[in-house]
Amino acid sequence: MSLNSKKRKLDRSAQDNVYFESYSDVTVHEEMIADKVRTNSYRLGILKNYKAIKGKVVLDVGAGTCVLSIFCVHAGAKKVYAVEASAIAEQAKEIVKLNKMEDKITIIKGMLETVELPENVDVIVSEWMGYALLHESMLNSVLFARDKWLKPGGCILPSVAELYIAPINDPVVEDRLNFWSTVKDQYGVDMTCMYDFARKCIMMTSEIAVNSVTMEDVLSHPAKFAELDLHTVTTEQLESVKGSFNCECFGSSSVNALCIWFSVTFPGEDRPLVLCTSPFKQETHWKQSILYLDEAVEVTQDTKVAGEITLSPSVKNPRHLCVHLDYSIGEYTNKSKTFSMGDGYPDPE
Amino acid sequence: MSLNSKKRKLDRSAQDNVYFESYSDVTVHEEMIADKVRTNSYRLGILKNYKAIKGKVVLDVGAGTCVLSIFCVHAGAKKVYAVEASAIAEQAKEIVKLNKMEDKITIIKGMLETVELPENVDVIVSEWMGYALLHESMLNSVLFARDKWLKPGGCILPSVAELYIAPINDPVVEDRLNFWSTVKDQYGVDMTCMYDFARKCIMMTSEIAVNSVTMEDVLSHPAKFAELDLHTVTTEQLESVKGSFNCECFGSSSVNALCIWFSVTFPGEDRPLVLCTSPFKQETHWKQSILYLDEAVEVTQDTKVAGEITLSPSVKNPRHLCVHLDYSIGEYTNKSKTFSMGDGYPDPE
Repeated sequence: MSLNSKKRKLDRSAQDNVYFESYSDVTVHEEMIADKVRTNSYRLGILKNYKAIKGKVVLDVGAGTCVLSIFCVHAGAKKVYAVEASAIAEQAKEIVKLNKMEDKITIIKGMLETVELPENVDVIVSEWMGYALLHESMLNSVLFARDKWLKPGGCILPSVAELYIAPINDPVVEDRLNFWSTVKDQYGVDMTCMYDFARKCIMMTSEIAVNSVTMEDVLSHPAKFAELDLHTVTTEQLESVKGSFNCECFGSSSVNALCIWFSVTFPGEDRPLVLCTSPFKQETHWKQSILYLDEAVEVTQDTKVAGEITLSPSVKNPRHLCVHLDYSIGEYTNKSKTFSMGDGYPDPE
Repeated sequence: MSLNSKKRKLDRSAQDNVYFESYSDVTVHEEMIADKVRTNSYRLGILKNYKAIKGKVVLDVGAGTCVLSIFCVHAGAKKVYAVEASAIAEQAKEIVKLNKMEDKITIIKGMLETVELPENVDVIVSEWMGYALLHESMLNSVLFARDKWLKPGGCILPSVAELYIAPINDPVVEDRLNFWSTVKDQYGVDMTCMYDFARKCIMMTSEIAVNSVTMEDVLSHPAKFAELDLHTVTTEQLESVKGSFNCECFGSSSVNALCIWFSVTFPGEDRPLVLCTSPFKQETHWKQSILYLDEAVEVTQDTKVAGEITLSPSVKNPRHLCVHLDYSIGEYTNKSKTFSMGDGYPDPE
């Protein structure tokens, strides 16, 4: 035997600590900066918007290693306030010094909701997107910053976020379920009866999986189901981000999951710059978020996969994401399922 | 941003529950049975010992899906008592029924230390090995079973376990540390000062890593540092499994870790069957256990890597493994470091 288990209850008061502590290790920052799609999109998105940034005051919400703050200085920012609650703020100070930007970038260690800035800002920049866009609920801090610190007519980078959904056939799940039929040939022991138990553990789970979906696994043209304009969306609206979808399948297959992903857009005079985490684009560290159906449903060309999806913060831990899905696949109608994404711990009772 | 964090304290009383719950999901059983090196070794190790098993009574300690119990019936066992504490016992019952062995295999749900068997047994079979052999401390249950239920002169399969160590150069760690030197070329931001922080997080950690080591990364002939004869070893001896090692490097490289692994042996009239988790053999789901040094040490041909290593159960959670290392690498002498392997949670204070 051999295992690493990870299930434990966590009381509410510790949730923010767990969240910020998770950003005090090098691994998460390495993963984010090594994600070239993410970091280059931010770099170009910021540089393209130099007219909004040059000579202006910027607030970087959740600055981490300050890489976005430095891009803003490259774009001509007069001053950047880099707010970061986790211990990585110490490393950020060294990085800012090494890049000789101490006069331009002021690192403020603390939670955005409680820190004081010496002035209002012209621009807010932030990389706040979690898995399935809204996991971690960090957008709330960006909106708080907007409402408290952004000058009227100020700019938010990126400025728009969009959510997409598509039915998929996840071949790994098919292989894992079929595995139990291969045991008899392999070892002479019939384990076919494990199929139902495996389906219960793998498909009938309410946990949202984060994994890479390849474009071949996507069974229809994706549907955009929500769009958030960061200049106008409110924290109340984030309590329930809801949308409908209506997809038509490309051909014969078996739908065993729906898959969701997001894009964010930086405005541009000529054309906007889009950071897109679609399975049809180059992979990012966000991969895609997968909602497994309790059972696979056969589809053919033009079978309709339609429904309504709602993303909301978990009642038990607002940093965790809850997804409710009402859906129909062809004749298989009026189904619903609720999912959640945690951090490896069950929410408190 | 995007993360899955996993740090939380766990009180002692919940430790056994966490341990057994972790075996109630399909994934761990799939991983074990899909590990062909493991399962075929057990199958052949049991079949080779058919003379000890035929017409005899067997106890399977931690039976899981009962695959080893079924192999014992294939080898001619008259009766197998399959003891399993986790909920997978329910699936095991279905599997035994499907294979028409209800008359031969009796599944007893419970902890080995508290269940009652109707008779003593001739043979004990168990797959008790955790990462680095002793993580999970399941061998204690096998020894308890031996002392309480095994007839004098009875047989334990496997019968011997051995532990090995070798210095390695983990190239992934080198790449991860060097990553911070590449950021300036990539994005125009100097992050070389992150090297020390990355080294602190990645190498100066006391956590034992479980990962695949390739044979090219092994820098000397491995040293066997401990051997446990399951017929004679005591639980007291498992409180501290200690041994020394003395390796001579193959050539010029940089030692950034020591690596440990194990083998277990099934007796055989002609020749014994060895299930070996060495980096020189086909990979198993145990991979290898890696002990990172605080800093890398340069070595050349014949540089001595020597020392003493002690494996013991963690004081705070006896299912967790603690490793203490005293070592010298060439002129770099009298170093020591203590490591631990948990289940993703810090031990209770």
